[in-house]
Amino acid sequence: MSDFTPTPRSRLKRLHQRAHYDVETVHRLINEIGTGTVGYVIDGQPYVTPTLVWLEGEKLYWHGSSASRMLRQVREGIPVCVNVSHLDGLVLARSGLHSSVNYRSVTAYGTAQMVEGAGEKEASLKAFLEHFVPGHWDTLRPIQKQEMKATMIVGMEIEEASAKIRTGHCEDDEEDYALDIWAGVVPVRTVIGEPEDDPRLKAGVPQPDHLKNINLG
Amino acid sequence: MSDFTPTPRSRLKRLHQRAHYDVETVHRLINEIGTGTVGYVIDGQPYVTPTLVWLEGEKLYWHGSSASRMLRQVREGIPVCVNVSHLDGLVLARSGLHSSVNYRSVTAYGTAQMVEGAGEKEASLKAFLEHFVPGHWDTLRPIQKQEMKATMIVGMEIEEASAKIRTGHCEDDEEDYALDIWAGVVPVRTVIGEPEDDPRLKAGVPQPDHLKNINLG
Repeated sequence: MSDFTPTPRSRLKRLHQRAHYDVETVHRLINEIGTGTVGYVIDGQPYVTPTLVWLEGEKLYWHGSSASRMLRQVREGIPVCVNVSHLDGLVLARSGLHSSVNYRSVTAYGTAQMVEGAGEKEASLKAFLEHFVPGHWDTLRPIQKQEMKATMIVGMEIEEASAKIRTGHCEDDEEDYALDIWAGVVPVRTVIGEPEDDPRLKAGVPQPDHLKNINLG
Repeated sequence: MSDFTPTPRSRLKRLHQRAHYDVETVHRLINEIGTGTVGYVIDGQPYVTPTLVWLEGEKLYWHGSSASRMLRQVREGIPVCVNVSHLDGLVLARSGLHSSVNYRSVTAYGTAQMVEGAGEKEASLKAFLEHFVPGHWDTLRPIQKQEMKATMIVGMEIEEASAKIRTGHCEDDEEDYALDIWAGVVPVRTVIGEPEDDPRLKAGVPQPDHLKNINLG
């Protein structure tokens, strides 16, 4: 796949040295971060819905059961903007104005489409769970056909996307480096905690090893 | 302030037992989480921009320097939707369909307005930094008047808002509790790491104690 060509919609307006339009960076950040928000418009009003996002091949997917307002519109093929971002640190400078944040962010544009059909839907649900908790799907009781109606998955060809990354320390005014003021970066991380057993877990069922491989943040 | 009255725009469509419309919950979640996305519409196209958010009194604020496209529109007073959310855990059930996520989320609607005037802007910048890093502002070299032009802060009266919270374990089908399948919650947390000194930090300048009080996540 060729890289994304920025148009006025996706070209970054400020600090373009932080911009990336290559597919590899866009896909890597989406795969790493896993949480996003979906923006859409109904009758001129903007809506933003948080969700989990993942890739299947070059298509972006999200789980829709918590946003039925969006899903009713999606059936008609609405334009959406998906942002996937993670705050990585507070960059504290010697002055307020040079303070900043480190982050990874992708903004992707396209037209949302419902995943229809029990087979396609089950494949997406499996891809979803396998992305976040690799190895987990095959340990579950199989999905029943009628259950598939209760879940909604939305897919989108990424028409355009841009990634933006900031790392490292501040850039203070040269004369400020001599001041007796602390400056540095305070890292912010997503941490996966120790799994907590369901209170009704059947006695003797162990925590599966693959819970160590959760992919988020 | 009275609580938010849900209209068709803000009323939660699904799982309304998770919904909260009281000001206290809405404000508490915004104060706790601190990261959000701002959704807005330009020529029918939705845009979503990640940012840091904070409250001053009952108004919601965000930092805008990374989104000049939005800011040009904001001068004209555009309707926005701000989502502030945090993923708190993966809820792994005995079946794919009952698996879920724990989270805290607020969606707020209003009309964005630029903070104008050096005095008002500096007060907002101070409130911003003091919210995330309490005690830090007074250690910095003072802001110069001409610097205030380089930063953009946007404020919004919250016209409507809803909060949504999910905690706890899965609700599996009754017969599935007898299966030899692990179920439980894998917590997801935002963790503040050890501060890293700027490579050009003046020798002898210590890390301030107040860096232990960073407020995020």
